[in-house]
Amino acid sequence: MTCVIENLDEMKAWSRRLPLEDRNLGFVPTMGYLHEGHLALVRESKKICRQTVVSIFVNPMQFGPTEDYAHYPVDLERDRALLKELDVDVLFLPKKEDLYPGGFCTSVRVAGLTENLCGGSRPHFFEGVTTIVLKLFHLVQPDRAFFGEKDRQQLGVIRKMVRDLNMGITIEGRPTIREPDGIAMSSRNAYLAPEERQSARALYLALQSGKALIEKGERSADAVRTHMRSIIESHPRTRIDYVSVCDPERFTELERVEDSALLALAVHVGRARLIDNCLVENISCSASC
Amino acid sequence: MTCVIENLDEMKAWSRRLPLEDRNLGFVPTMGYLHEGHLALVRESKKICRQTVVSIFVNPMQFGPTEDYAHYPVDLERDRALLKELDVDVLFLPKKEDLYPGGFCTSVRVAGLTENLCGGSRPHFFEGVTTIVLKLFHLVQPDRAFFGEKDRQQLGVIRKMVRDLNMGITIEGRPTIREPDGIAMSSRNAYLAPEERQSARALYLALQSGKALIEKGERSADAVRTHMRSIIESHPRTRIDYVSVCDPERFTELERVEDSALLALAVHVGRARLIDNCLVENISCSASC
Repeated sequence: MTCVIENLDEMKAWSRRLPLEDRNLGFVPTMGYLHEGHLALVRESKKICRQTVVSIFVNPMQFGPTEDYAHYPVDLERDRALLKELDVDVLFLPKKEDLYPGGFCTSVRVAGLTENLCGGSRPHFFEGVTTIVLKLFHLVQPDRAFFGEKDRQQLGVIRKMVRDLNMGITIEGRPTIREPDGIAMSSRNAYLAPEERQSARALYLALQSGKALIEKGERSADAVRTHMRSIIESHPRTRIDYVSVCDPERFTELERVEDSALLALAVHVGRARLIDNCLVENISCSASC
Repeated sequence: MTCVIENLDEMKAWSRRLPLEDRNLGFVPTMGYLHEGHLALVRESKKICRQTVVSIFVNPMQFGPTEDYAHYPVDLERDRALLKELDVDVLFLPKKEDLYPGGFCTSVRVAGLTENLCGGSRPHFFEGVTTIVLKLFHLVQPDRAFFGEKDRQQLGVIRKMVRDLNMGITIEGRPTIREPDGIAMSSRNAYLAPEERQSARALYLALQSGKALIEKGERSADAVRTHMRSIIESHPRTRIDYVSVCDPERFTELERVEDSALLALAVHVGRARLIDNCLVENISCSASC
């Protein structure tokens, strides 16, 4: 039976009551408007953890002043039904005024990993993410937390925070879930008009094509970037935020593609800003390995 | 029996093993070279908590490049003996390379409370303090943590961090312990040559005299500052860092002294930078209340 908790102290007390022996609490923090990507994380948690908490909170601190906080899609009834069906133990629904009361002024920053890619175009984004995730971790006290690889920089940043701050939580990354035509699942896909939906395929196509280019032997990161750019630009209604061929751990741009590379994109399609990425590994082996 | 733990995972495991029922673990984080101020905190923890952990770690992150990190006084043998005598449960001695491994890049900031006083003259100080305290809290997982009121801004900043980050740890502040002549106990008093020791009394004398001025009816904060400055300047070998008459919660300078005021000082005496403060409350009542 899924228990709904809104109160912060209640959430904390619920978690504290779990028996210590073989404690294994899984946590999936979300901003709601759940899609298969979220649900795959929840199923993973259900599979490998003893209990599972899912939170839904649209975090104002990670949105810039001109971004889509006010319009972020919400469908709490549908989300509740989906999570009940998956039989999660707790649906945690904290309130904005409880998480950010008047005078709130503390923030957490992971320097070094947050300057580029999404951190470059959304300067306060990662500070907003790390701060809310740290707060939620303190409230839920999970043993494992699940994040999708679609937000691979976020995954890396949270892993670093947890390690640097000695939190002892295992961060579990899971593969991006895609629509049949390749588009990465995202709550923001709801912004796309039908013609924009077609253009949104540009991200997936550019990543696949960039990866193929590397597998064929291209080693110049600039050549790969230019190639991916041209694919995106050939799709109408797209505006590139960034096209990156970077180090998969440090998110710094590469000059040469050697052992591994992260191809990462952020593209505005209509009023949606979409991101996607593809990790290319074992590049020095033959293309078949 | 006092158990000495150096390993971070061991510290965490020790704390995790404590029975949940009526859990009440007290924690006194220190930089060592213990004096009566520290020991009073330890005794308080022993009195009101079930177990007590004391940590000793000279935290490089809270020292500026020109400050006294390299010369900070150390006497681990004496500290160990004192803590054994007080029968603390754990002496936690983490290593610098474990707390700050290569690539460490995460920090916590409490904006708003950290711009003035010690935060003004030591720009990275509070970020260093909040980051190490958060790390130690994650490792020790205390129910209560004890801090001296000599570092009253630090106490306020840590309280705010714990509240903002939903940590559920009770922060216990305890009064400054003083030498018979009024000087606040501090590990840095060890830097003072005998003549400097005399000049170091200037801080206590200025605070007492500033407080008396307010109790006699002075309401101009500037008049109180000027008065305290003149007392300090009348002592040789002193160099003022700041003289503050501020709001006791927000640490912003006051114009008028109304209900309550914090008198706070930082003064270089020889090569020691000393701080002290005095809270003046219920000012609107008569001086006798």
